[in-house]
Amino acid sequence: MKVLVIQNDVQETVEKNLRHMDTLMSKIPKDSFDFILFPEMFTSPYEHQYFKLNSQTADGQVIQYLKKIAKQYHSYVIGGSVPEKDGDKIYNSAFVFNPQGHVINKYQKIHLFSITYPNGVTFKESDLLSSGNQLSIIETPYGKVGIIICFDIRFPELIKKYREAGCQCLFVPAAFNTYTGPLHWRTTFRARAIDNQIYMIGSSPSRQSFGSYEPYGHSLVVDPFGKVIKELDDKEGYIIVDVDLSRVNDARQRIPIIKNEVNLSDMLINHEVDQ
Amino acid sequence: MKVLVIQNDVQETVEKNLRHMDTLMSKIPKDSFDFILFPEMFTSPYEHQYFKLNSQTADGQVIQYLKKIAKQYHSYVIGGSVPEKDGDKIYNSAFVFNPQGHVINKYQKIHLFSITYPNGVTFKESDLLSSGNQLSIIETPYGKVGIIICFDIRFPELIKKYREAGCQCLFVPAAFNTYTGPLHWRTTFRARAIDNQIYMIGSSPSRQSFGSYEPYGHSLVVDPFGKVIKELDDKEGYIIVDVDLSRVNDARQRIPIIKNEVNLSDMLINHEVDQ
Repeated sequence: MKVLVIQNDVQETVEKNLRHMDTLMSKIPKDSFDFILFPEMFTSPYEHQYFKLNSQTADGQVIQYLKKIAKQYHSYVIGGSVPEKDGDKIYNSAFVFNPQGHVINKYQKIHLFSITYPNGVTFKESDLLSSGNQLSIIETPYGKVGIIICFDIRFPELIKKYREAGCQCLFVPAAFNTYTGPLHWRTTFRARAIDNQIYMIGSSPSRQSFGSYEPYGHSLVVDPFGKVIKELDDKEGYIIVDVDLSRVNDARQRIPIIKNEVNLSDMLINHEVDQ
Repeated sequence: MKVLVIQNDVQETVEKNLRHMDTLMSKIPKDSFDFILFPEMFTSPYEHQYFKLNSQTADGQVIQYLKKIAKQYHSYVIGGSVPEKDGDKIYNSAFVFNPQGHVINKYQKIHLFSITYPNGVTFKESDLLSSGNQLSIIETPYGKVGIIICFDIRFPELIKKYREAGCQCLFVPAAFNTYTGPLHWRTTFRARAIDNQIYMIGSSPSRQSFGSYEPYGHSLVVDPFGKVIKELDDKEGYIIVDVDLSRVNDARQRIPIIKNEVNLSDMLINHEVDQ
């Protein structure tokens, strides 16, 4: 399956972002794609005030735009994420579109990001955002794929649940920053691919995005052996990659991790106190 | 706490290995150590015939040797692993010694290694070895530490169980090879450290070991932020490192992963079939 991964400079408002995205998309070869992946919060600077300003209802401008893209390319679209306004709540949501442009699924970020930077500044998504409580899986003609968002990738059990449900590829709209990115981005994507023997595909806004948050960029595609097939730098750009899901089985036959799983739930601990 | 990690060239027999180890140990500064870690199967080539030949009962030569080392350095010793003969079974076992030279714990490898190499050759530990069914935790004056062996590291739930039980440092006698090592060694150690915000300390035989199996070497120490503090190449050698367990809390306060865990067991799947 042919995948297009977008890494855009995020602008201040939805309107500016959609205009800017048109320009970026016009530079991309008019190939036919099977999946198009946008980054987390790709139409809003990554700050609470802008999440509010740029929040979208389920029929908002960004959703309409992504419907158009899906139809135009006759491709599945994983709509990065948007600050989704639902009543008085805002979620970090990835809408999913089929090649006919219909919304067929939606993932709401489960694990909300929280951090204290080296300079002491603290940020918590949960100060504004609400968290989801469902996994999202789409069974396509190419195979089963799943969606998580950014901080979710730090929880191996979540990725394992997707794998156990049959997913061979996870799409991960994300926005690590220039602190967590160099430390953890590549290693975490590779580890999830290695452990579960699946493809991991991550998209990020580029570093030059508007506002105080500096996204790490480095959108990437990792194969089921944990090899990074493609990775961008921190600038605006895109990846076009052929993903061969049959390599999932190759990896699993070569190193039979899943077959060797053991039920650990009842395992005793040989605990020695020596003090 | 001060940790010594040994990376030895494995010889053909136990006798040759212990003589060779004396020579290696004589080259190491006579510092005082708090923990000494030996590699997986550090007194036997990594092949079934040699596991049988070099297998040890619980009072065998290698165990006596490690008791002596523990007393001599007045240090805890994680005795790499030995092929432990217990009745008609052989386990891949790490004996643990306190600074008085007493065996205080034993870990038997739970997840047995299995692989098909690119040349088609298949190897399965389970053709000869039996697997353990207990975690091993030692509560020392420095903190709680745990032990896993090699292939175990591929199972994130196991490492999570150790972390949940309070371990801040895992010792991992291991013996990746020149196929799996470059692909997965560093990434997997780093990911377990990043996800659990603990120290991960791995030891391996060096590449020039006797026999057909080529260990990857690259013994390493990873901190709770996932930074590799020390890493050897593939040659015989050792690491001496100061491990500061208070950095576990630093990492957890900075990026509160554990606090943000969500119970996933009852989570629904939003599953769309679009075919």
